[in-house]
Amino acid sequence: MKHARIRLPGEADIHAVLVNDDHSVQLADGRRLAEDAVEWLPPAEGTVFALGLNYADHAAELAFKAPTEPLVFLKSPATLTGHRQVSVRPDNITYMHYECELVVIIGKTAKNVSRAEAMDYVAGYSVCNDYAVRDYLENYYRPNLRVKNRDTLTPIGPWWVDRDDVANPAALTLRTWVNGELRQQGNTRDMVFDIPFLIEYLSSFMTLSPGDMIATGTPEGLADVVPGDEVIVEVEGVGRLVNHIVSEAQFAARQAQTV
Amino acid sequence: MKHARIRLPGEADIHAVLVNDDHSVQLADGRRLAEDAVEWLPPAEGTVFALGLNYADHAAELAFKAPTEPLVFLKSPATLTGHRQVSVRPDNITYMHYECELVVIIGKTAKNVSRAEAMDYVAGYSVCNDYAVRDYLENYYRPNLRVKNRDTLTPIGPWWVDRDDVANPAALTLRTWVNGELRQQGNTRDMVFDIPFLIEYLSSFMTLSPGDMIATGTPEGLADVVPGDEVIVEVEGVGRLVNHIVSEAQFAARQAQTV
Repeated sequence: MKHARIRLPGEADIHAVLVNDDHSVQLADGRRLAEDAVEWLPPAEGTVFALGLNYADHAAELAFKAPTEPLVFLKSPATLTGHRQVSVRPDNITYMHYECELVVIIGKTAKNVSRAEAMDYVAGYSVCNDYAVRDYLENYYRPNLRVKNRDTLTPIGPWWVDRDDVANPAALTLRTWVNGELRQQGNTRDMVFDIPFLIEYLSSFMTLSPGDMIATGTPEGLADVVPGDEVIVEVEGVGRLVNHIVSEAQFAARQAQTV
Repeated sequence: MKHARIRLPGEADIHAVLVNDDHSVQLADGRRLAEDAVEWLPPAEGTVFALGLNYADHAAELAFKAPTEPLVFLKSPATLTGHRQVSVRPDNITYMHYECELVVIIGKTAKNVSRAEAMDYVAGYSVCNDYAVRDYLENYYRPNLRVKNRDTLTPIGPWWVDRDDVANPAALTLRTWVNGELRQQGNTRDMVFDIPFLIEYLSSFMTLSPGDMIATGTPEGLADVVPGDEVIVEVEGVGRLVNHIVSEAQFAARQAQTV
């Protein structure tokens, strides 16, 4: 099953919904609404962890060595957005790239969980596009907030799917299209640190809670995106997340319209 | 006025309370409860930002150069705790140090706020002890979660005080006592990046929300602490936060008791 969080136009309430095969959503009161009739929010509400350099090919592309322990950083709520939303490319930068990633959704409280038992703590999977502004990057081991925590630059969704609906999370194709052209392709089998390892590692020093999300890193194939671009990231068998890049001025105009 | 968030023993509800001069708390229903009769929680509920190397003397102590732009990292909810709670020193480490810090509490939504207007966005101030496990430190510019995001290692509180109750936040003495002995002393005038600058900087790329907290860094004077130690951090005119260090085994025993 696919689980999402949405809002109806002009309303403040957040609805937890199931998503049908045609991507319409099913409200608790029986209403069924089309994909384009709702506002998609990030599919869960917990803390978001993100991995740097967790695909060896991507590390090589950036001329870095793959890390010897997981390079994890945190995302603030302000950087998160949902499916079919916009992301703002800052003015006066030269390079902002997409990153297609598989997201693990934690299903129950996890502390000191072993690798062998780690998958019991997974509720399911989602997709994110963990944009980065390369201009502000001094070191991939230093997750500068200006690179990785800007408003709107972490779309997650559209939904999360149950763990049991994904036969093997370690063999999923990741793909990114920009304006319909395939630009990035990889496979979760190439992760440096796999999902059980990441849960064991994080839960060895901090408590993971239901709804927490782990964005597991991106493979090679990065390129600059600019206002007007449509960027689609997809994880095989999980979902396809659509996002549009806008300029600061376009974003300000949209905000003014919705107030 | 002093504002806090507390729980009553055995109850799940969180109460927003005012704190009296004798540190008793005033509930909405008129009850007045002594400082030791309540469970103190972090005083606000937003995202916590923390500064690295934001006092030049501390950077020098660690043999680092002071940064040329703010070195900010995020705190996960699991690392936060309150006044009079315990913090766990991991087994099998050699060095864990306290860090007394002034915390800024954001009072209203802040985006693209100028330095000149920044203080209008401050609701008030609190205190935190931003413990760090030195063993896992590879680079102060790389805020490894094992150093700075472990469960229980960021006590904040006891309360926050209104902005107008602090005449000059840029001239406050910071002090840390371990088992009654003064071990760390500094002054907020020695910050590398001051409060208006930090708000201007962060709000230039991300939205700050009411309840967000900025822990503004610590001066020199760090030392190892061990289970059994009482650690008190104080910011002049803001508050004094008491914390006790326990071992993993002692913490597990406490948790078992409260279940």
